[in-house]
Amino acid sequence: MHPIEIVDIMRILESSKDKTILFRLLSTEKSALVFAELDANEQEELISSMNDKEIEELMHEMSPDDRTSLFEELPEEINKKIFSLMEKEDLDITKKLLAYPEYSVGRIMTTEYISISPNFSVNQTLEYIRKYGKDSETFEVIYIVDNKNTLLGYILLKDLLFANRTDIIENLMHTDIIYLSAYSDQEEAVLVGRKYDLLYIPVVDAKNALIGIVTIDDIFDIAEEEETEDFHKLGAISIDDDFTGNIKQAPILTLYKKRITWLFILVFINIFSGYFIGIFEETISKYVSLIFFLPLLIDSAGNAGAQSSTLIIRSLSLGDVKKSDWLFMFFKEIAISSILGITMSLAVSLLAIFRGGLMIALVVSLSMICVVVIGSLIGLCLPFIFVKLKKDPTTSSVPLVTSICDITGTSIYLLLASIILTKINI
Amino acid sequence: MHPIEIVDIMRILESSKDKTILFRLLSTEKSALVFAELDANEQEELISSMNDKEIEELMHEMSPDDRTSLFEELPEEINKKIFSLMEKEDLDITKKLLAYPEYSVGRIMTTEYISISPNFSVNQTLEYIRKYGKDSETFEVIYIVDNKNTLLGYILLKDLLFANRTDIIENLMHTDIIYLSAYSDQEEAVLVGRKYDLLYIPVVDAKNALIGIVTIDDIFDIAEEEETEDFHKLGAISIDDDFTGNIKQAPILTLYKKRITWLFILVFINIFSGYFIGIFEETISKYVSLIFFLPLLIDSAGNAGAQSSTLIIRSLSLGDVKKSDWLFMFFKEIAISSILGITMSLAVSLLAIFRGGLMIALVVSLSMICVVVIGSLIGLCLPFIFVKLKKDPTTSSVPLVTSICDITGTSIYLLLASIILTKINI
Repeated sequence: MHPIEIVDIMRILESSKDKTILFRLLSTEKSALVFAELDANEQEELISSMNDKEIEELMHEMSPDDRTSLFEELPEEINKKIFSLMEKEDLDITKKLLAYPEYSVGRIMTTEYISISPNFSVNQTLEYIRKYGKDSETFEVIYIVDNKNTLLGYILLKDLLFANRTDIIENLMHTDIIYLSAYSDQEEAVLVGRKYDLLYIPVVDAKNALIGIVTIDDIFDIAEEEETEDFHKLGAISIDDDFTGNIKQAPILTLYKKRITWLFILVFINIFSGYFIGIFEETISKYVSLIFFLPLLIDSAGNAGAQSSTLIIRSLSLGDVKKSDWLFMFFKEIAISSILGITMSLAVSLLAIFRGGLMIALVVSLSMICVVVIGSLIGLCLPFIFVKLKKDPTTSSVPLVTSICDITGTSIYLLLASIILTKINI
Repeated sequence: MHPIEIVDIMRILESSKDKTILFRLLSTEKSALVFAELDANEQEELISSMNDKEIEELMHEMSPDDRTSLFEELPEEINKKIFSLMEKEDLDITKKLLAYPEYSVGRIMTTEYISISPNFSVNQTLEYIRKYGKDSETFEVIYIVDNKNTLLGYILLKDLLFANRTDIIENLMHTDIIYLSAYSDQEEAVLVGRKYDLLYIPVVDAKNALIGIVTIDDIFDIAEEEETEDFHKLGAISIDDDFTGNIKQAPILTLYKKRITWLFILVFINIFSGYFIGIFEETISKYVSLIFFLPLLIDSAGNAGAQSSTLIIRSLSLGDVKKSDWLFMFFKEIAISSILGITMSLAVSLLAIFRGGLMIALVVSLSMICVVVIGSLIGLCLPFIFVKLKKDPTTSSVPLVTSICDITGTSIYLLLASIILTKINI
């Protein structure tokens, strides 16, 4: 049975005693795989039900990268207890990995890979794999290093299969190797893994020495986490979003805390719209029918802004658009949004003539073009500004863009109205 | 050099002649890999510059799944021309794969895998791989089938390495096999691949016979496409979004067409807000300071709705929340949004007292609680409604949710105002 299926069964069990019993029934090897798939609080629960011997065995069996992420999640005092139970060798590896910065490649890599010398023969290599390969996370790829552990190349297990037993690795190895630095951001691993369709990416230190590998399952997990983070940021759920849990299970107060910050900030941003309305109070009370079109115009500004910001944010994160492209995209957006604005302006002008007369229709039509163009440009520029400030472009969430566009839209509309209507002086 | 790096170089070249020259310099094997990585229009350009012999060779060298996606993109007349040049065997496979529904697993699978009988010995298997393996996309996994081609299990290349040469496969094979139906949605491949961290997923037909495999690189590509689609839908960019191209390169008219539909629909939805304002025109002209708080309240409704819909949409697509959970989530959302609404109501009440007096403050505070709760519930329910209608939940984009919340917010605010202010009759 696949570890994930065992996790599914464990989650159906109500009592934590039953969970522990099921967990104890598994082989040590299987239990380490199952344990790695559990949530932080489930791991904590199990650990507290285990004796010292069981903890020691479990820690030894877990892969180094799974262990690193475990210690990231558990409370400090439990970590200390587990550290005291671990074998020295395992502990050294764990401490080394935990020394890398949070969200760096070093934190997600594993040290269980196979590396050999370039002057090994195929036969020697196969022997070596049979001897030391059992513990490795992979030996579909075997890395080749010199005596300073500098990464020289790699060879695939299948290459060995088609080679002669006496061939020397140096003559067979691939040297077009793609690797990561342990200090790179985890996001880099996702980008590189996706771009080159890699199942394993070797990781090197500052001296180009091989120190670990990142495996596809970790890349998958990070990709999913980062995307959830992007979605949540785009929906203005949390500013410093590290919430990737299950919203069905999350406590109400946690969700409240995640959501209130942005809502609160946006309330105060929106008060500006009120001030602009205050400025133009005279015009409004003279032409009350202007208010009829207010929600329509401010929403159109917001919607156009939401579109352009979503498009640009996604393109920035995929690498289709770069920071330096902003001026090109700016002019392109002017062209697109102008046609969008004119189309929408034509759509509402008839209604405006019918509802408010010719002059109001003129104001509404002109405003529609302006707010759509300016809203789109705000939506486009905000993500670039965040990138410039070295922040995640996704921080310019749709609600933030919408709110800023709303204020701008309100003021453009009322300004145009007061100028045109006062000038013409009907 | 990695095929992707060659593609990068080709894209830097300006003239299409230079591109063709570079492409011709590659070995047939490499050129097929490079070709598969190109965009549809780049592929079309190259094809038109190739002679019949070159096209035939290229088609033969390409993997069946890459070929399927090529024919999906190219114009019909070019497809016909290429079909006429292809070898019969290749053509049969291609036609078989193209017969599966669009966006099905059948369209992305490859037929180049290795399958053996359970009574093979390890030695026989290794011989078989050496003989037939070169053309296979993978032989890290070898599938085991009976004489009707029914999938029985699998064995890893590394298992063979540690086994005795005379062991029989039946005794070594893993039977906890996870597979897909050729008729399943592509999204299923992403979900299964991610859940079980699989590099290759076998695909079976209606009779459980093995007919292909899906490989991780295709899963990566689909995941990226589907996420881009989700982002774009969430930003109300396109209703039937199949636009996954590069927005920097996309023509202005294409982007215009993608964006105008939703903007147009939303304009007409927003006219309703105007109608509600029309109904309460009397109240508004009596208490003009009400308008001061209008943008603030309608935006708060929209922002709360954007949050809850984004959270639920992402959870539905990850499978954390299921269709049947809607009632539970509904009550949970009532609790969360009530606390959110009360917090925000406290924040604006002081301003409201200062700006509009005690009675206006009462109206604004009460409205704030109501619009946040009702906005959040709209944002929560809309995705579930789309799922119920068998549509993608992401169709309930943030701008759509915002617009509906805006109308509701406007009417709640003005309704409460007219009731309270008329009743009290200041």
